[in-house]
Amino acid sequence: MTQTSSSWINREGLALLTDLYELTMAAGYIKEGRWQKRVCFEYFFRNLPPHAGFAVAAGLEPFLQFLENYRVTDDDIAYLRDLSLFDEDFFDFLKDFRPRCTVRAIPEGTVVFPHEPIVQIEGTLIEAQLIETALLNMLNYATLIATKASRICLAAEGDKVLEFGLRRAHGPDGALSGSRAAYIGGCSSTSNVLAGKAYGIPVSGTHAHSWVMSFESELEAFRAFARHYPERCVLLVDTYDPIESGVPNAITVFKEMQAAGTLSRPAIRLDSGDLAKQSKRAHRMMTEAGFEDPLIVASNDLDEDLIADLKRQRACINAWGVGTHLITAHDSPAFPGVYKLVSVLENGQWLPRIKTTSNLEKATDPGRKNVLRFYDAEDYPMGDVMYGIEETPPTDGEVKVHHRTQHHVHVRLRDIKRHETLLETVFEDGQRNRPEPSIESIRKRAQDQIEGLAEEYKRLRNPEIYRVFLSEGVGHVKEKLLANPDQW
Amino acid sequence: MTQTSSSWINREGLALLTDLYELTMAAGYIKEGRWQKRVCFEYFFRNLPPHAGFAVAAGLEPFLQFLENYRVTDDDIAYLRDLSLFDEDFFDFLKDFRPRCTVRAIPEGTVVFPHEPIVQIEGTLIEAQLIETALLNMLNYATLIATKASRICLAAEGDKVLEFGLRRAHGPDGALSGSRAAYIGGCSSTSNVLAGKAYGIPVSGTHAHSWVMSFESELEAFRAFARHYPERCVLLVDTYDPIESGVPNAITVFKEMQAAGTLSRPAIRLDSGDLAKQSKRAHRMMTEAGFEDPLIVASNDLDEDLIADLKRQRACINAWGVGTHLITAHDSPAFPGVYKLVSVLENGQWLPRIKTTSNLEKATDPGRKNVLRFYDAEDYPMGDVMYGIEETPPTDGEVKVHHRTQHHVHVRLRDIKRHETLLETVFEDGQRNRPEPSIESIRKRAQDQIEGLAEEYKRLRNPEIYRVFLSEGVGHVKEKLLANPDQW
Repeated sequence: MTQTSSSWINREGLALLTDLYELTMAAGYIKEGRWQKRVCFEYFFRNLPPHAGFAVAAGLEPFLQFLENYRVTDDDIAYLRDLSLFDEDFFDFLKDFRPRCTVRAIPEGTVVFPHEPIVQIEGTLIEAQLIETALLNMLNYATLIATKASRICLAAEGDKVLEFGLRRAHGPDGALSGSRAAYIGGCSSTSNVLAGKAYGIPVSGTHAHSWVMSFESELEAFRAFARHYPERCVLLVDTYDPIESGVPNAITVFKEMQAAGTLSRPAIRLDSGDLAKQSKRAHRMMTEAGFEDPLIVASNDLDEDLIADLKRQRACINAWGVGTHLITAHDSPAFPGVYKLVSVLENGQWLPRIKTTSNLEKATDPGRKNVLRFYDAEDYPMGDVMYGIEETPPTDGEVKVHHRTQHHVHVRLRDIKRHETLLETVFEDGQRNRPEPSIESIRKRAQDQIEGLAEEYKRLRNPEIYRVFLSEGVGHVKEKLLANPDQW
Repeated sequence: MTQTSSSWINREGLALLTDLYELTMAAGYIKEGRWQKRVCFEYFFRNLPPHAGFAVAAGLEPFLQFLENYRVTDDDIAYLRDLSLFDEDFFDFLKDFRPRCTVRAIPEGTVVFPHEPIVQIEGTLIEAQLIETALLNMLNYATLIATKASRICLAAEGDKVLEFGLRRAHGPDGALSGSRAAYIGGCSSTSNVLAGKAYGIPVSGTHAHSWVMSFESELEAFRAFARHYPERCVLLVDTYDPIESGVPNAITVFKEMQAAGTLSRPAIRLDSGDLAKQSKRAHRMMTEAGFEDPLIVASNDLDEDLIADLKRQRACINAWGVGTHLITAHDSPAFPGVYKLVSVLENGQWLPRIKTTSNLEKATDPGRKNVLRFYDAEDYPMGDVMYGIEETPPTDGEVKVHHRTQHHVHVRLRDIKRHETLLETVFEDGQRNRPEPSIESIRKRAQDQIEGLAEEYKRLRNPEIYRVFLSEGVGHVKEKLLANPDQW
C-alpha cells in the first residue's frame, strides 16, 4: 500500500477530526488545572436500529489505529493558532500529547444490545474528551453497517450477499469503512477495489450495461466477455430485454463455452424489472437448455425486506448484489451511539457518576462496568448483566439481577449453564496489547455470534427484546444516585 | 497541511476507488482493441430528494482534484496482479494512465434539476469507465448534503445554521465531504475542526454537558467557561434543569461578565426538552434580567421540518445546531445520480446513443448536451432546455421546445428576458483549465442561485415542479431513436 492512501486508511493525520468543543473544553481543563483528573467514559447506545433484535459491534480496530497514530502536527497547531481561541500552553500540551488511556472493549463482531458499554475509556479528563468525537464517528458508522449487513444476510438465508455500495456511499471513506463493516456483518465480497486492497476483502463484479452497449450486438458483447473472463463469466442480461434477448444470448454463449470446455458455472445477473418473475423464467430457460444449476445474481434497490419477499415468492435467485440500502443503512442511516461519563477518581476512589433526565429510561447506568453474558441450558444467550468492574463475578446456576429502570423489580436468571465476560482490555500505555485480529476472524466471530443467538432475536420484524440487566451492585448505586443526585 | 491528511483530502491515492467491474471492462476493452473509441457519458439524476424543488450541485472540485491526482501506483498493480484476473498488458496501460478526458460541468453551487447533465465526460471509452465510480461517489454525496443543507437553511429563514454532524457521519470522510457540502448549501460553520482546516470553513462549538458535570456545580462550570472564553461564551444550560438551574446560573454569570466588562452577547444553548417552550421561557427570563437580545442556540435532532414548526410556534431561537439529519440526509440518505453513455464517435461523427427501457420516463436523452436556463421578465428562471452541444443557441424572446417524454407536446417559452449556458469546460488535457474557485465563492453562488429562484420552488412540501425540456434538435433525435432503437 502506498503512503498516500494507507495513511488515511491507517487513520493517520486525523487528530483534528474532532468537534471544536472538545478542544475548547480541553484547553479549559488545562487552564483550570483539572485536566489530569482521572475519569471513565463509556460508549453505548439506547436504541437498536428499526426492527433489529441485535447489533453487531464494529469499528473498534480502526479506532484503536487512530489512537496509536494520534499526533497533533505542527501545521495542525498553526491552524489552531489562527483561530485565536487558544494559548501557547495548550499547544505545548497538544504537541506532545499521545493517548495513553486504557481502553476496554467488546471485540468487533460481537452481538451487542442497548445500554451495555461497548467501549470504555479510562484515562485523564482531557484525553477522554480529545478522542470522543473520532470514537463516535468510527464506531457509530461501522456498527450501523455491520448490523444492516447482518440483517440482509439473514434475509438471504445463506445465499451470498455482494456489497455494491460505492457509488452511493457517503464519500470515499463512507465507502471504505462501510465495505469493511459490511464484510464483518456477513457480506461475501465488495465491489470496491480499494476496500479490497486496504482490508483484504474479496472483490467481485463483472460488467455493466455500457459493456453491452459499446458492442454491435449483445451476443458479441457476451462472447467477448466470455472469451476474456471464462472463470468469472456472469453475464448481465437486461440491457435490452432479458427474456427475449438477454437470456437466449447468454445460453448461446454458455453452449459455446461448454463446447470449448471453458464453462465453469453458467451465471447471469438481473438488474431491473420484476426480479421474481424474470428470475423464474430465466431459470426455466436455462434448465431447459440443459444448464441444471445456474447462478442467478440479482441487484436493483434490494434490502432485507425485499429479499425476504422475493424468497417468499420463490424467486430463482442465489446471490444478491446490495448497494444503496446497505452502504447507507437507508431506512435509518445513523447509529445512535453516545459516550458518557460514568465515573471519576477522587482521592484514590472511583466514584460513580450518573446523568439524570426527566426520562428515567435515558438516565445513564453509573460506574465502570463490564458485561456478563449468561447462557441457558441449550447454550443460547439468555441475558446480559452489567457488573461493576470491581464486583466479584457470580457463580453460575442462578443469579439475582436488577431491572434497569424498574428498580423494585428483581429478576432471577435461572438454569445458567455458563457465562462470558464481554469487555477486555485492548489498549494500554499508548498501544494495542495484542495483535490486530484479522478481518476474517472478526467476520467469523460475527457469524458465530449470530448463529448462536436464538431465532426469536433474528426475526426481521418485531423480534423478541433481549434482556439487559444491572447487577445488584450497580442497581443499588443507581437507585441511591437517582434518589440523591446532588450528593454526587 | 501535513502530507498524511492532505493527501486524502486532495483525493490522492484513490485510483482503485472503483467498482471492480470498471476494471474488468477496461481490461476487456484493451483486449478487444476498442479502448480508444471516443465516447461521451453524462452524469444526471432522475428524481429530486423527497419534497425538494431543486438540488444544489456539489462535489465537482474534489472530483477534478481526483482526476488531476489519478495515479495507479506500483502497489496498486501488485494488488491487482494478485487477483489473477488481468494480464500484464493491462498493467502496462494502467501504469501510465492519466485521465485526459474533457470535462464539461455545471459549476458547484448551481441549482440543478432532474435529467439535465451536471457533468459530462468526453474521452476514450476506457477512461470514461475507469473514473465512473469515483465520480458517482463524490458527486452524489456532496449534492445530497448541499441540497439538504439548503432546505434546512430555508427553514431557518436567515438564522445561522451550525453543522454538528461529525459524530453521526459515515466515517471520517463522510464527515469531511459532508461538512464542505453543508457549508456550500448555506450552513454558517461546522463543528468539525479537520474540515475547518482542510477547506477553510469557519468552525464553531463551545462546551458539552461533560464540562458542567466535571465541576462541583453548574455555576462554577459556567464561571470557568466565561473566564476562559468571554468572546465565545455560549453556555449549555440543560445539563440539569434549564429553567430551574441552567438559565438562572447563566444570567448570574452574564451579570458578572457585564460588571467586569467582558460580556459581548449573552448566549445560551438548549439541547433537550421542548425547544419551543423552553426557549420562550429562557428568552423571557433573560430579557427580564435586562439582556435584551440574547442569542439562543438550539440543537437536538433538528431537521428542516422541525425547525419550520418551531418557527411557526414562535420559538425564541436564533441559531440552529443541526447534526444527524443534515450530515446523513436522514430522510433519504442517497442521491440517485447516474452516469450514462450518450454518444459515440464513429468515423469522425458523434452518434447519439439512447438507453431505452419499458418506462419511457427512464429512457435517457441522447447526444452530447448543454443546458440553457431561460429567465422571465422578472429575471426568475422559467425553465431549462437541453440543447445538442453543436446546436446554435436560440435568440431570446420565444423558444419552441419539446417535452421530455410526451413527444407530441410542443411548448413555447415566451417573454424570455435572457438565457444562460450552464455547462462549461472545466478540465482538459489532464488538468483544470481555470483556478479552483474558493469555497466562499461556491457558497456565494449557491446562495445567489437559491435567492434567485421563485418562491414556488422553495416550499418545503409539494413545491412547484421546475420545467426541463429538450430542444427541438434533441427532441427529434430522441423520437427517432425510440422508434428505431436497433438502428443505433
